[in-house]
Amino acid sequence: MITKQQLMEARQRALEYLSRAGIVLTPEEQERIEVADFGLGDLEHTGLELITYVNTSRCCAKELVLFPRQTCPEHRHPPIGSDPGKEETFRCRWGEVYLYVPGEPTPQPHAMPPKGREPHYTVWHEIVLRPGEQYTIPPNTLHWFQAGEEGAVVSEFSTTSRDEFDIFTDPQIERITRVV
Amino acid sequence: MITKQQLMEARQRALEYLSRAGIVLTPEEQERIEVADFGLGDLEHTGLELITYVNTSRCCAKELVLFPRQTCPEHRHPPIGSDPGKEETFRCRWGEVYLYVPGEPTPQPHAMPPKGREPHYTVWHEIVLRPGEQYTIPPNTLHWFQAGEEGAVVSEFSTTSRDEFDIFTDPQIERITRVV
Repeated sequence: MITKQQLMEARQRALEYLSRAGIVLTPEEQERIEVADFGLGDLEHTGLELITYVNTSRCCAKELVLFPRQTCPEHRHPPIGSDPGKEETFRCRWGEVYLYVPGEPTPQPHAMPPKGREPHYTVWHEIVLRPGEQYTIPPNTLHWFQAGEEGAVVSEFSTTSRDEFDIFTDPQIERITRVV
Repeated sequence: MITKQQLMEARQRALEYLSRAGIVLTPEEQERIEVADFGLGDLEHTGLELITYVNTSRCCAKELVLFPRQTCPEHRHPPIGSDPGKEETFRCRWGEVYLYVPGEPTPQPHAMPPKGREPHYTVWHEIVLRPGEQYTIPPNTLHWFQAGEEGAVVSEFSTTSRDEFDIFTDPQIERITRVV
């Protein structure tokens, strides 16, 4: 749950990060930047700002903004009917992002989960993405990510996005943000 | 057909345009920028520079560069087997691009086809894209585009790309560039 004021401030801040990455949004897009607090009401630590450019029945493209050390919590995109689940490529455009997927845990990872939520972060194989670097996540694969000290702008290229079906490891998370 | 020298020069020039759009490529990507002359050997007028970020069996993302007034010639992406054909969204990142699709012909279009190739440009409904503006082209739909006086950088978000199956209106065009 976030307030209208928090929503407006986070949108403005996201626009500043996008601008640092050289990314231009139309006025209409600026008004519909999504601010996700994942229901924890702690946007600075658990949250994501995003703009969806296109999302058809076949493919999708978004821009993601993470404030410094902001974390998108662990989740996966499950199969839905005949769809095997969303396949995503994350491409870092600006800043630095630490992405975690299943595999050999990285001994000294760059990221730390938000305080108190540690048990809900279970995959620890780290991929560091700097501008121009990217990684493709197969369908139905647990993943989470956190920005470095400066924040990050990340392009997401994917199959159809159905955020409402995402499955989060943390049972307290609600994907759809309530604005009060 | 282009020379190795032309390829290297066009890649370097494309990198300069990408840089103006704030877009960073890895060294590996810089080395595989594709330069397409469409077999006409007149790259300045008919041509396209592109880098494919990802192209899986489900979706694809590329960055396209057009030099000033450079034209990507008229073509469509036909159905292949159970695939209805490639669906593409073009998003202008830098510069200006004039996109033409079927529909009411625009009375005074911004673009002119390359000299001598005019008969092979048959769709004239114009969409002008400036930074932040985008347009989605359905599968199997004729389209062509030309950059404005300053050139253009355009992101392409699409379903799987199979360039070798593209159907061009101009019978002299060969999609796969030969480098000599």
